Amino acid sequence: MDVLEELRSYREKDIPYSRVLSSMCTIPHELAVKAHQLFIGTNLGDPGIFPGTVELERKLVSMLGELLHRRDCAGYICSGGTEANIQGIRSARNLKRRKDPNIVIPKTAHFSFEKICDILCVEVRRANVDEDYRVDLAEVEGLIDGRTVAIVGIAGTTELGQIDPIVELSKLSEEKDIPLHVDAAFGGLVIPFMDRPYPFDFANKGVTSITIDPHKMGMATIPAGGILFRDESFLKALEVETPYLTSKMQFTLTGTRPGTGVASAYAVLKALGYNGMREIVKRCLKNTRILVEEMSALGFEPVIEPVMNVVAFKTERAEEIKQELYRRRWVISTIREPRAIRFVVMPHVTEEVIKNFMGEFRRVV
Amino acid sequence: MDVLEELRSYREKDIPYSRVLSSMCTIPHELAVKAHQLFIGTNLGDPGIFPGTVELERKLVSMLGELLHRRDCAGYICSGGTEANIQGIRSARNLKRRKDPNIVIPKTAHFSFEKICDILCVEVRRANVDEDYRVDLAEVEGLIDGRTVAIVGIAGTTELGQIDPIVELSKLSEEKDIPLHVDAAFGGLVIPFMDRPYPFDFANKGVTSITIDPHKMGMATIPAGGILFRDESFLKALEVETPYLTSKMQFTLTGTRPGTGVASAYAVLKALGYNGMREIVKRCLKNTRILVEEMSALGFEPVIEPVMNVVAFKTERAEEIKQELYRRRWVISTIREPRAIRFVVMPHVTEEVIKNFMGEFRRVV
Repeated sequence: MDVLEELRSYREKDIPYSRVLSSMCTIPHELAVKAHQLFIGTNLGDPGIFPGTVELERKLVSMLGELLHRRDCAGYICSGGTEANIQGIRSARNLKRRKDPNIVIPKTAHFSFEKICDILCVEVRRANVDEDYRVDLAEVEGLIDGRTVAIVGIAGTTELGQIDPIVELSKLSEEKDIPLHVDAAFGGLVIPFMDRPYPFDFANKGVTSITIDPHKMGMATIPAGGILFRDESFLKALEVETPYLTSKMQFTLTGTRPGTGVASAYAVLKALGYNGMREIVKRCLKNTRILVEEMSALGFEPVIEPVMNVVAFKTERAEEIKQELYRRRWVISTIREPRAIRFVVMPHVTEEVIKNFMGEFRRVV
Repeated sequence: MDVLEELRSYREKDIPYSRVLSSMCTIPHELAVKAHQLFIGTNLGDPGIFPGTVELERKLVSMLGELLHRRDCAGYICSGGTEANIQGIRSARNLKRRKDPNIVIPKTAHFSFEKICDILCVEVRRANVDEDYRVDLAEVEGLIDGRTVAIVGIAGTTELGQIDPIVELSKLSEEKDIPLHVDAAFGGLVIPFMDRPYPFDFANKGVTSITIDPHKMGMATIPAGGILFRDESFLKALEVETPYLTSKMQFTLTGTRPGTGVASAYAVLKALGYNGMREIVKRCLKNTRILVEEMSALGFEPVIEPVMNVVAFKTERAEEIKQELYRRRWVISTIREPRAIRFVVMPHVTEEVIKNFMGEFRRVV
């Protein structure tokens, strides 16, 4: 068997996205795939060799910055939300230079903050959330002390797609002079395209950095994460010298770094434009609504009314249902508090996928 | 202009590899590109969705482990050498749990250790090198104290392609009971295919982790780095819990993570085999020799006799030569101590490329 045939046999064991209702990633857009192919072999880690790809990255960063009300932001396209969150917190930690630093995050923050706590040697303080699973402001304020180097707000929580009160967090951040990092890895390319976009971005003066991942709702190829900063000073706090490269300094976490994600993210955003993205988001929200109706008809109640295209339904049997569906090659996920089954209605989760899924789901429950 | 045409216009501004003699990356092998394309869209960060890709990753890790005399090693395919080095040191730091930890590295270590120092809050102590630019053992021993959590040795230094005395470092590591991390990001896929391979790998009992990057001499597509550990316990020290994914724990640094690098690295190593890789390495070493002869004829003397396909030539005019060549769209690099121009003779640096380069070089000097 030749090696490509062998590889195909492995690939066939993977579960197709048409049976995946749990992932924040999706089938990359066909333009994303074409763009990706043009840039296989590029390495943004050595910018002097790839000046064209570097220029494209700058354009993409400005484009994302414009979407987030700060065209002249600083930042770069990275491996994903974890690197983006690490770099956002690392920058704040380095600028604040406090002994035994801590950060205050919502209890609903992504598990990557567990890694960040370990990697960056910062204490992570978790603030409780209100009945709508938005972080409690009084809790956040109470956890802040003289060693706090960053506050974190989430725009599109992983479990429920909820948006923290960023406007109020921003005021608190300004008042206390503590950087506010917004994890909009998922929501960053959803919220701006909704009918009444919640102001989660740089329009709030306290927001100093934002994680926004084109390889989630931007339908770019993996890896394409994004970390944007209010200005260059935050990037400067990440720099190390780079002898023997074509650049003098490097602020990225990784060294060698593909240009494929830049090209694929750019292709999708440029070709679809704001209107095209609005259409995509609209369809995902409509399909989320359809899922809620179908599930309600079976007696399953959403944990919160979905804010975006993420929704969870309460059930004590969550784990069991997930596992039984997995045995039938359908992938959903669960959350633990409250016990619920969780869905992400990505662009590949079409009406037809939902229909097929509900057929299987009815047999399982 | 349609977006793909626009992207092509950016891509054309990049410098082709046929004019790049400075990079440790290369044109990916054609099988690597084909394999990559089959796995666009895969995400190893959510293993339950991609069981086939996960299985392939395990095979590749074993294959690399076998090459490094430890088939049953633990590890994973990551974004590149920086992530691999971070994870190697982080694991050692977490296992040793010492207050104000430090690591002892050679002065010749890659600049990513600067980032590691900042990111992981470890003090970095730099040991001097001998006249052959191999780390001085007495220096290393003198820098170790009760707070040292790791020793680092390099198998293929970035500047000169030199190999540290890993055998002796390993003895020291066993004697002091301190993990030894070997950065073989470059040399890991060169040394095993040389006529008299230096024993830099797990055959030395003190070696606990090795960085080995298929996207360098493995001709895989970017990103394809590798971090291998002697056993599972080192991976365990990196784990965090992962609710709402198809896995329970995650030891990688990044979350979402492409399977493309796994597929492309596997394709090349499987199809070429050890014999094919030996041929590639042999040709690179032969071309390095040709470059040395051509340069010697012009009066340029190598800093050290090349150990592998990396070579630097002493000249006080290093920066000026590099810049003048860059103006003519040829990329070489420089080192600072001693002042020298540096070359990496990757598979794309053929005899013809060297001939073309030397023509331009003669005009410049």
